[in-house]
Amino acid sequence: MTAVLAFMCMNIQAQSHNHSHGESGIVHSKGMASMDANAQFVPYEFERHAVGDNDILIEILYSGICHSDIHTVKGHWGTPNYPVVPGHEIVGRVTQVGKNVTKFKVGDYAGVGCLVNSCGVCEHCMKGEEQYCDNRKNVYTYNSYDHFHNGTNTLGGYANNIVVTERFGIKIPEGAPLDKVAPLLCAGITTYSPLRTANVKAGDKVAVAGFGGLGHVAVQYAVSFGADVTVFDITEVKRQSAMDMGATKYVNVNDAAQLEGLANSFDVILTTIPYNYDMEMYLRMLKVDGALIQAGMPPAGQYPSINTSLLSGRRKVYGTHIGGIPETQEMLDYSVAKGIYPMIEVIAPAQITEAYGKVEAGEVQFRYVIDMSKL
Amino acid sequence: MTAVLAFMCMNIQAQSHNHSHGESGIVHSKGMASMDANAQFVPYEFERHAVGDNDILIEILYSGICHSDIHTVKGHWGTPNYPVVPGHEIVGRVTQVGKNVTKFKVGDYAGVGCLVNSCGVCEHCMKGEEQYCDNRKNVYTYNSYDHFHNGTNTLGGYANNIVVTERFGIKIPEGAPLDKVAPLLCAGITTYSPLRTANVKAGDKVAVAGFGGLGHVAVQYAVSFGADVTVFDITEVKRQSAMDMGATKYVNVNDAAQLEGLANSFDVILTTIPYNYDMEMYLRMLKVDGALIQAGMPPAGQYPSINTSLLSGRRKVYGTHIGGIPETQEMLDYSVAKGIYPMIEVIAPAQITEAYGKVEAGEVQFRYVIDMSKL
Repeated sequence: MTAVLAFMCMNIQAQSHNHSHGESGIVHSKGMASMDANAQFVPYEFERHAVGDNDILIEILYSGICHSDIHTVKGHWGTPNYPVVPGHEIVGRVTQVGKNVTKFKVGDYAGVGCLVNSCGVCEHCMKGEEQYCDNRKNVYTYNSYDHFHNGTNTLGGYANNIVVTERFGIKIPEGAPLDKVAPLLCAGITTYSPLRTANVKAGDKVAVAGFGGLGHVAVQYAVSFGADVTVFDITEVKRQSAMDMGATKYVNVNDAAQLEGLANSFDVILTTIPYNYDMEMYLRMLKVDGALIQAGMPPAGQYPSINTSLLSGRRKVYGTHIGGIPETQEMLDYSVAKGIYPMIEVIAPAQITEAYGKVEAGEVQFRYVIDMSKL
Repeated sequence: MTAVLAFMCMNIQAQSHNHSHGESGIVHSKGMASMDANAQFVPYEFERHAVGDNDILIEILYSGICHSDIHTVKGHWGTPNYPVVPGHEIVGRVTQVGKNVTKFKVGDYAGVGCLVNSCGVCEHCMKGEEQYCDNRKNVYTYNSYDHFHNGTNTLGGYANNIVVTERFGIKIPEGAPLDKVAPLLCAGITTYSPLRTANVKAGDKVAVAGFGGLGHVAVQYAVSFGADVTVFDITEVKRQSAMDMGATKYVNVNDAAQLEGLANSFDVILTTIPYNYDMEMYLRMLKVDGALIQAGMPPAGQYPSINTSLLSGRRKVYGTHIGGIPETQEMLDYSVAKGIYPMIEVIAPAQITEAYGKVEAGEVQFRYVIDMSKL
């Protein structure tokens, strides 16, 4: 009976909010864009596709700044389609739902991560691993060819709103701290997924290399799974934060003495470093049957090369790429239940340009989140 | 009752045969040795340690020629201790047992693979993965420091006999074709173990790269596990043999046309190539979550280097190293039960030198086995 009432209620809401924003239903948006590779952000108005029957419209409240945003805007992975409106760590409130939508109702909080659509019918989509869509029809949240809307270029979350298929909306529990939740949509899933895939469990010796936006969330997950966690970074500045988050050891790789005695030490090494680095140094630290998982995404041409003689003893290396929607929901629910959140600094849209410089210099502890209400 | 009788019988035999071969019990041996890196084999007489309480003495009947023998003799992995008596694919008959020996009795057939001892108490030895002995006290069958016999240099199976701790003897079922069994002790376990580790099962798409001594056994295992097997080699000569063994496809990598359409094709690629090769070409053929396993052991400095950008989508690469004793026994029992054997050519000891040249030229189909009775 309750379910029936809820369903009726949703339908009423869906109809009452399913008005278009113009004759065509086009959604008007405003955000912050970089017009070229100089990453100077300016206000930018644009249009999004109409809210379809399976879509939701989200009024964006917070949007995290991910290192991938910087790589994209600056053309590190190839020239993007300018203007670029980045942002794939999005939290907001649902303001409109299509007539077929059942997962959300108006007023719900919703998140959007790196993906906004995919074919939905291939083996990987059926498994909920849309990031590996076999038909390569997955649509990224920004700077991506939208297979389902005439090949338009997607624009991301540094904006006041976004339209997304309900399947790609993440439900955010009541009472969650919305600003801190935002970075979980990328930094959270990108580290949670590989740690789960590697079956990290109590007693495992885990290393996290790169203690930045991704790394500091990874440490919290690994600690929560009961692992004995060592952190690697290139500075002394972050030592205390790592220990506060439950790491048992912090290694400044610029101090050779701190690297001694670490050969054959780790079951899992998760690297989050977004530039080229000495992966071979880390491979030497793996135990037999250990795995090095690369979660960071360096610029094109800057991925580490390695000699495979270091992979004897079934020492594995592999790369991981974000995570699928069901696991993103699992990650978010787990994070809220365990109180695992990034350390953030909330900034206004006008500060994005400056923030990029600080992220590149490793000066943020640990994630900038843009308050989109200040747009 | 039968067990008790068998035990008494073994004890009587043990005592009756536990005579020493001299005052010190030293065992006199003769074999074929290479005195330097030229790999010219000559008759060579030497002594082995006495048959200890836990040891067995084996009269060697057959000994396989492995590519590792050539690498070792020629100094590809560093200068060995000459004279080198290679051979770690050994089959023979037990002629003497120490007083504590229970696994073998005189007259049994026994095999010896790449290992003859290890610490026995570390985590990996306790798990039966002596090849990864944490204390690094594993003793290889030849050209190895014997931690348990005053650091003497071990001498291998191109000889008339060998002394080995019973734990490292492999039981060979009655009726097995002894000449064909010999190569299983290295080529068999080196391919069986990684295919099992990778959980190859019915319907999996498996590739075997390098269709030589290891590869042609690997294909038979993978086919027996129900996999759809593709073979890669550099010649047309071996095509028919591969198809006869149950492969569904044979790719001559020297013919570019045959390589088309293979991207994202395989769950598992087992590479057995004992020299440097284009591993990146194979990495591009892995599916999401696929694994490339390197079983071949190139010379020092000739291991392939790879760029890790090819490992996205959890595409794994790792190296494997032979297998432990329990799994070697499992492999042997499985092979005999399934009738999986190498294709061999039996030669006399006087032909070893010539045989090395043919192995290096890829002209053997597929394994030389030395008839040690012709010594």
